[in-house]
Amino acid sequence: MFKTYGYAVQSADAPFAPFAFDRRDTGAHDVRIDILYCGVCHSDLHTARGEWAGTVYPNVPGHEIVGRVTEVGSEVTKFKVGALVGVGCLVDSCRTCPSCQEGLEQYCEGPGGFVGTYNAPDKHTGGVTYGGYSKSIVVDEAFTLRVPENLDLAAVAPLLCAGITTYSPLRHWNVRAGQKVGIVGLGGLGHMGVKLAAAFGAHVVLFTTSASKVEDAKRLGAHEVVISKDPQQMAKHANSFDFILNTVAASHNLDQFTALLKRDGTLTLVGVPEHAHPSPDVANLIFKRRKLAGSLIGGIAETQEMLDFCGKHGITSDIEMIRMDEIDKAYERMVKSDVKYRFVIDMATLDI
Amino acid sequence: MFKTYGYAVQSADAPFAPFAFDRRDTGAHDVRIDILYCGVCHSDLHTARGEWAGTVYPNVPGHEIVGRVTEVGSEVTKFKVGALVGVGCLVDSCRTCPSCQEGLEQYCEGPGGFVGTYNAPDKHTGGVTYGGYSKSIVVDEAFTLRVPENLDLAAVAPLLCAGITTYSPLRHWNVRAGQKVGIVGLGGLGHMGVKLAAAFGAHVVLFTTSASKVEDAKRLGAHEVVISKDPQQMAKHANSFDFILNTVAASHNLDQFTALLKRDGTLTLVGVPEHAHPSPDVANLIFKRRKLAGSLIGGIAETQEMLDFCGKHGITSDIEMIRMDEIDKAYERMVKSDVKYRFVIDMATLDI
Repeated sequence: MFKTYGYAVQSADAPFAPFAFDRRDTGAHDVRIDILYCGVCHSDLHTARGEWAGTVYPNVPGHEIVGRVTEVGSEVTKFKVGALVGVGCLVDSCRTCPSCQEGLEQYCEGPGGFVGTYNAPDKHTGGVTYGGYSKSIVVDEAFTLRVPENLDLAAVAPLLCAGITTYSPLRHWNVRAGQKVGIVGLGGLGHMGVKLAAAFGAHVVLFTTSASKVEDAKRLGAHEVVISKDPQQMAKHANSFDFILNTVAASHNLDQFTALLKRDGTLTLVGVPEHAHPSPDVANLIFKRRKLAGSLIGGIAETQEMLDFCGKHGITSDIEMIRMDEIDKAYERMVKSDVKYRFVIDMATLDI
Repeated sequence: MFKTYGYAVQSADAPFAPFAFDRRDTGAHDVRIDILYCGVCHSDLHTARGEWAGTVYPNVPGHEIVGRVTEVGSEVTKFKVGALVGVGCLVDSCRTCPSCQEGLEQYCEGPGGFVGTYNAPDKHTGGVTYGGYSKSIVVDEAFTLRVPENLDLAAVAPLLCAGITTYSPLRHWNVRAGQKVGIVGLGGLGHMGVKLAAAFGAHVVLFTTSASKVEDAKRLGAHEVVISKDPQQMAKHANSFDFILNTVAASHNLDQFTALLKRDGTLTLVGVPEHAHPSPDVANLIFKRRKLAGSLIGGIAETQEMLDFCGKHGITSDIEMIRMDEIDKAYERMVKSDVKYRFVIDMATLDI
């Protein structure tokens, strides 16, 4: 064990404060990483504030991690000291179930599912895992990603969650050139969805309730922007989409989007609403053989594929950099969706 | 035009009564059919009783038709006089939209969609189409099916709606040997779903709320029967199904079935509930990349494929034969789900 430090909340209503804790020593298959940047995901806020059941305090969130390897275990083959690496939402899984065997560790069917980067039972320490709001982390090389050297490293961090959460469904449903693809919502996830779907060659339509986002959506790569609360604008797109990725977790009417799908089209949700969406219209599904689906982050192999793709196409997140001690303020702004489009913590500010 | 006769309702609350009406003369591409048998579908009841919007009275229902060709138009190539034929839910469509071009006429994207066998605008007569509760019908050969000679003809009739409505989704989602497949509900649709899924080689599990149906489900081909209101029985099957076909239109909790799907499994609905199902749990979809889908009857080519498949495998519906003048009584029993598993009208009884 070695001492490291980070920022933690000690209870659901406490602000973040400096926190010293132990990390495991670098095991045979582990890499030790100095964290350079950590993205701020809405899941961090839900967990820190106890809005989802099961937060163990103190809680150190953070699963959009970019850093450099400072030590490698004796059996490590993928990384050398100095390598630029990323860690996303998963730091381990059972590795033996069908999903793990297929490289879909995010759907791990082992007891308890995959091991989350924070707030998950930690078999090494006996406590819970602590995430990326910290100076360093030790991760099995099998759950450590190579980060392309050509990208802005701070802006890479959000790819590890927001990026893969949108990349995976776009790939799984085979989004490609010649298709018309919708992205619902222009937040941390949605802005990545727009960039990625455009890079895949699709005709991208961004749906937003807010007219103020039209220009920015176009700048990010959307070919059209539709104000989803305008029924006339919506009606023009009826039955025309191959695929729609819905990144909005707040409860809303899904039928307005399923009605825009072509026959055999799919509306995929990536966010769990606090209050249920109104029950979707079954006729809307039956009369066009449409599908309503869900998708969860992505597996390790696909996350690597996504990072490589982003390296090749020069894609990163649009970010606002913050200091570690600005995290509470950032959460307040995030609650109001006041961020373009992802906060990233500069971990150098932990030292000051 | 020529005179024919059948049974019609004159209003939403009227009983059925004999009704004389005109059919078009046999056009160049038409076949004229003497109807031998007509199955009784729940849609007939909804339409006759005005439970769905838009019923035009007098209404002659019936879209599970088996008969013999008595006359063919000058351009007809598929059928000769004396041929055994079937007519299902569709008698025409735009024939030019992408769905029609792909042989998926049930999803016709032309104005008004496909032309239903009854209660649809009839371009030939200027009125509405009249269905199979009648002595004869004239149908374009393109929407007329070949019926295998080796099957019990009365028991073939329900294949034209109940059969294809279950066959199409089982085929579309590629149900096959080695898979575990669920069928929800053991009625007209469900009992066909069980027979077909078993014939496709799948391990078939029938879900019913009624313990009295267990033995019959097994007789029909189900390998297992689960009482869906028993949470312990249900829990044993968690995460184990490749595909579930849900034939129950009454409002019910869908989550109990999505929770039984494996990762990437699909729950497909074929019935529109009068009152919405409780809103499905989005987490149930996201954490296993599951899909909730709908499916509508089937296209002409697929209906022919289904009839040929049933001929080859000796599959028909389990039926109770009725006289035409017993139709009101049959509806009363159908409302109580008191039929095993489809009423079929013997059209010879129209003459008596």
